[in-house]
Amino acid sequence: MTDTARLKPMANAIRALSMDAVEKAKSGHPGMPMGCADIAAVLFGDVIKFDAGAPRWPDRDRFVLSAGHGSMLLYSVLHLVGVADISMDEIRNFRQLGAKTAGHPEYGYAAGIETTTGPLGQGVAMSVGFAIAERMMNARFGDDLVDHRTWVIAGDGCLMEGVSHEAVQLAGRLALSKLCVIWDDNGISIDGHVSLSEGGDMIARFRAAGWATISIDGHDPVAIAEALAFAKASDKPTLIAAKTTIGFGAPKKAGSHAVHGSPLGAEEIAGARAALGWTAAPFEVPSEILADWRAAGARSAAAREAWEARHAALSPAERAEFDRRVAGDLPEGFDAAYAAYKAELVATKPKVASRKSSEMALEVINGLVPEMAGGSADLTGSNLTKTKAQKPFLPPDYSGTYIHYGIREFGMAAAMNGIALHGGLIPYGGTFLVFTDYCRPAMRLSALMHQRVVYVMTHDSIGLGEDGPTHQPVEHLAALRAIPNMLVLRPADAVETAEAWEVALKHRAGPSTLALSRQNLPTVRTDASENLVAKGAYVLADAEGAEVSLFATGSEIAIALDAKAKLDAAGHPTRVVSVPSFELFAAQPEAYKAAVVGTAKVKIAVEAAIRQGWDAIIGSDGLFVGMHGFGLSAPIEALYQHFGITADAIAALATERLA
Amino acid sequence: MTDTARLKPMANAIRALSMDAVEKAKSGHPGMPMGCADIAAVLFGDVIKFDAGAPRWPDRDRFVLSAGHGSMLLYSVLHLVGVADISMDEIRNFRQLGAKTAGHPEYGYAAGIETTTGPLGQGVAMSVGFAIAERMMNARFGDDLVDHRTWVIAGDGCLMEGVSHEAVQLAGRLALSKLCVIWDDNGISIDGHVSLSEGGDMIARFRAAGWATISIDGHDPVAIAEALAFAKASDKPTLIAAKTTIGFGAPKKAGSHAVHGSPLGAEEIAGARAALGWTAAPFEVPSEILADWRAAGARSAAAREAWEARHAALSPAERAEFDRRVAGDLPEGFDAAYAAYKAELVATKPKVASRKSSEMALEVINGLVPEMAGGSADLTGSNLTKTKAQKPFLPPDYSGTYIHYGIREFGMAAAMNGIALHGGLIPYGGTFLVFTDYCRPAMRLSALMHQRVVYVMTHDSIGLGEDGPTHQPVEHLAALRAIPNMLVLRPADAVETAEAWEVALKHRAGPSTLALSRQNLPTVRTDASENLVAKGAYVLADAEGAEVSLFATGSEIAIALDAKAKLDAAGHPTRVVSVPSFELFAAQPEAYKAAVVGTAKVKIAVEAAIRQGWDAIIGSDGLFVGMHGFGLSAPIEALYQHFGITADAIAALATERLA
Repeated sequence: MTDTARLKPMANAIRALSMDAVEKAKSGHPGMPMGCADIAAVLFGDVIKFDAGAPRWPDRDRFVLSAGHGSMLLYSVLHLVGVADISMDEIRNFRQLGAKTAGHPEYGYAAGIETTTGPLGQGVAMSVGFAIAERMMNARFGDDLVDHRTWVIAGDGCLMEGVSHEAVQLAGRLALSKLCVIWDDNGISIDGHVSLSEGGDMIARFRAAGWATISIDGHDPVAIAEALAFAKASDKPTLIAAKTTIGFGAPKKAGSHAVHGSPLGAEEIAGARAALGWTAAPFEVPSEILADWRAAGARSAAAREAWEARHAALSPAERAEFDRRVAGDLPEGFDAAYAAYKAELVATKPKVASRKSSEMALEVINGLVPEMAGGSADLTGSNLTKTKAQKPFLPPDYSGTYIHYGIREFGMAAAMNGIALHGGLIPYGGTFLVFTDYCRPAMRLSALMHQRVVYVMTHDSIGLGEDGPTHQPVEHLAALRAIPNMLVLRPADAVETAEAWEVALKHRAGPSTLALSRQNLPTVRTDASENLVAKGAYVLADAEGAEVSLFATGSEIAIALDAKAKLDAAGHPTRVVSVPSFELFAAQPEAYKAAVVGTAKVKIAVEAAIRQGWDAIIGSDGLFVGMHGFGLSAPIEALYQHFGITADAIAALATERLA
Repeated sequence: MTDTARLKPMANAIRALSMDAVEKAKSGHPGMPMGCADIAAVLFGDVIKFDAGAPRWPDRDRFVLSAGHGSMLLYSVLHLVGVADISMDEIRNFRQLGAKTAGHPEYGYAAGIETTTGPLGQGVAMSVGFAIAERMMNARFGDDLVDHRTWVIAGDGCLMEGVSHEAVQLAGRLALSKLCVIWDDNGISIDGHVSLSEGGDMIARFRAAGWATISIDGHDPVAIAEALAFAKASDKPTLIAAKTTIGFGAPKKAGSHAVHGSPLGAEEIAGARAALGWTAAPFEVPSEILADWRAAGARSAAAREAWEARHAALSPAERAEFDRRVAGDLPEGFDAAYAAYKAELVATKPKVASRKSSEMALEVINGLVPEMAGGSADLTGSNLTKTKAQKPFLPPDYSGTYIHYGIREFGMAAAMNGIALHGGLIPYGGTFLVFTDYCRPAMRLSALMHQRVVYVMTHDSIGLGEDGPTHQPVEHLAALRAIPNMLVLRPADAVETAEAWEVALKHRAGPSTLALSRQNLPTVRTDASENLVAKGAYVLADAEGAEVSLFATGSEIAIALDAKAKLDAAGHPTRVVSVPSFELFAAQPEAYKAAVVGTAKVKIAVEAAIRQGWDAIIGSDGLFVGMHGFGLSAPIEALYQHFGITADAIAALATERLA
């Protein structure tokens, strides 16, 4: 039974705290929390499986506030249900330096903040990743351990964003029935009424994508409860279209964009308090209402305890495996097996594209690490991301671990964030490096949220040849290196590719991007006993009394080695430094860095990309052989010649500078 | 009457040339051209308003091959109708260095290539821009001068991409009835059957967005003709869902992804020729078929001549205005009026945010330049992109020049590319700088295609304050500076903002990004007689015997000037260099650059962003005051203090280095 008399005051508590916090901060978005308060009251009051006393319980339902500007909705609820991280002092400190209550929800600041949101659309897209992860984990561990839902509140902004299309279509195809998106249909966006820019039929849109839909009054607790029950019973993902009034309760500003993104002001707040019958002082919640909220926060404790009993009753091996995956640790024995693989590469010296050596590494990794959740944005045969034993992740059994994301690069990247945030799985996904431009907003969130997501980006330069400038990355390495906390790894041969994968898997504190070639590369490494990619840069080929140091990455290492041979032969001893990762190199001790950079008179960086960023290694007086603008459509050999990225050009440049 | 007997061989000519060219290049995508050949034969044979003898006629219909990998479809058609740029030698040279027939269609290479496509989805999104431009121009110049259609062929890839959602919804809202998207519904994507990742109902999707729809057999010329006529009669944008067989005619590979992206091979080509009844030698078209194609190419000559007569009959002033806009020239008198505005700024010294001084500049510009087509991705009141006299661009009269793009940053950017490519208008549009991540794939195309699109990117640093790290750009200036041919302009005060807008408007060969502050900035320039932003960098405040040079941009100029005052007072003469544009500075003569960089012992760059890129100006031994990672949620003053971007910190760093 839905107890409206209990739920309405609970909703008003959200409204009051949201008004108060925004007013005190003199900044924020009161409209959305006030509009969605009734929904949140029913969802958290009666429905969601969430134990405020154990907010990180692995089998909890996830709540994603895709409309992240409404952060005070989330903070209010977390405080009210009794999540310890969000004290009333945190509410008072909304949007202040050091507060857990940042302007938008920031993952890692407090339990119950399941993901960072604010960049619109991405919450919806990440929620698809959460729902995928739930099904993939369920297929392995069963209903006893994994059986939870993902609840989302999204606004018009989220659903106008293109990434929502990618997410909605994918969720429909995958029949992710435990995903429910509640659309805060308030008719208002920043520019005014949404009809200024939107005339579509949202219900019909979601139905066309294979979703169940239901339309309700978002201020009627009974209707909200029925809709949530409808979603739970559905065999499809569900859209609840909830008609709401933005800023509900504000006497003059409700229902207009004036209430979206600014404090209400003292007068309007007084009016809202009167309208809502809220008499408590600012930042105070009457004890009865708080008690109802705290009861709601404890509502799932029994379910959590039952889960813990089932977990405790598992076989030790099964429990350990579940716990290992949730903890994100690699399996025991990984290092030894992987070392053997790397040693084999040194022995066999394959000459393959690094996309191919990535596939070879993945064959080993996926055999050792069952929690790998692979995929590609419809470039499987080009990215070489699917290993032999992987089956597609598809309904009804969901036992596959390879996701055909479709031609949805951004949606894939956002879903991978959701998968990583869910826990228990390590997502990786492929497209062409140039299309990191499409993924970029989600890659930034991977980095900001410190999530272990592996971006497998192939066709990493003009070396892809004839597809031409739209497909040839030129600025992308620099642009990715620019993202804080993003590891960019561009391996030069099969050994470095294996090392790069190892680095990515062990890099728990952030995402990695592997930049991989389409063209074949010789194996240049003769020893794999130490992971040298982990150092970021190292001397690959030394020379006594070196006059020239060549610094290169990926496919340009072979060219640099050719140039070294020419320069050595011409009496100019030349060393070659491989630089698979700027970020890892920057983190090395100064003495190591100085030794690797060396003191040769001439320093030349070689990379089939723009120079930006290289000065930090070769100095601003260093020389550069690479790209200075967009590429062209032509066979690879013609392109490297045309753009002057050749051993002859390097040798000539060095010789000229030495003269 | 649709003459199937004539059209089928015309379609086969496309198939034959596409097979031959891909085979000779040993690279390319034969499947799409073979599958869509019948559609192209009817469209170009009987329907489209396109005169091959005058392929740049302003009132031509535009054809956008959104599925750009099917480039041989477009090249075949352009050759066959007789566009002089695409000779048979060009067809033979498909995908070779220097050919006009690049792997994907590249704008500027040949008449008839209306836009660069290949990055999926963007053709559809740009076509919305073409259709907007047509209506906006029509509203000003009437049916006699502007009355044409936009025809698009899109594949599943285009329509899975999120940007297609943004485009489709916007086109539906704007009721762009002269836009027709033909969906090449071949059921195949690279990973296999599209059902691997897509289960939605495309017809229902487009209907939900307010489009007219019709489903046809894409190999039946009569049905194709009827559908095209349906589209012409519709008062909504139209989706033609055309069921096709990818690689139509190839006996073994047709209908499978094997025919998508690789040459067919000699045996399969022989089989296809037999199946299609094509007996001509490779790269030969039988004279009767060619004659039919050439007749099709000349079909619209009479319409073009009639248009020219109407154009000639215009009043001289009206004709000159139309021609000026189409040529892309600014109005006479612009310079004088704009100089007066800049002089006024020097006199009045406003202290306003640069987003506000951008609005002030736009008030002047929009009054002088009626072809400005403005807009924002639902941040109008934040970006300050709408000037007082602008009305919304909305049906039915379309006389407004301000587009409410909705929360669709990528769709906006792509539409702006379409508007710019269409000609006659200068598009500008706003969002927050951090959301250039969303726009980025289209910004790259603006740059690649050399289009004058102005990106008005406000809230350009941690200076936006409480919204926090998701909204604070840190790496974006570097990432945008990395894009070849993109001007990035970060003005420091109202005068520089006015100059930046002038630079952007006069920069015909590429896009510009204005990075603008949320916070107020003092006017620091005392003279506006020369546009100093156009030099990229200049000495803003000199010092005799300077020991320190400070280099800064935008909102950090005021901080650098404060630091100079402190250092001057402490006996360390300090100069301040304003660096509004790295790209423009890099293009200056070496002597000028050396003089601006100067010889002070200590060089410090100050920018509330990452260092990447600055070494080119200050040297790798230069010092940097800025950001080293993501931002935080807090009031602006707290953030600048927390991250140490203050005059005191700069002065202390300089003093320490001088000691």
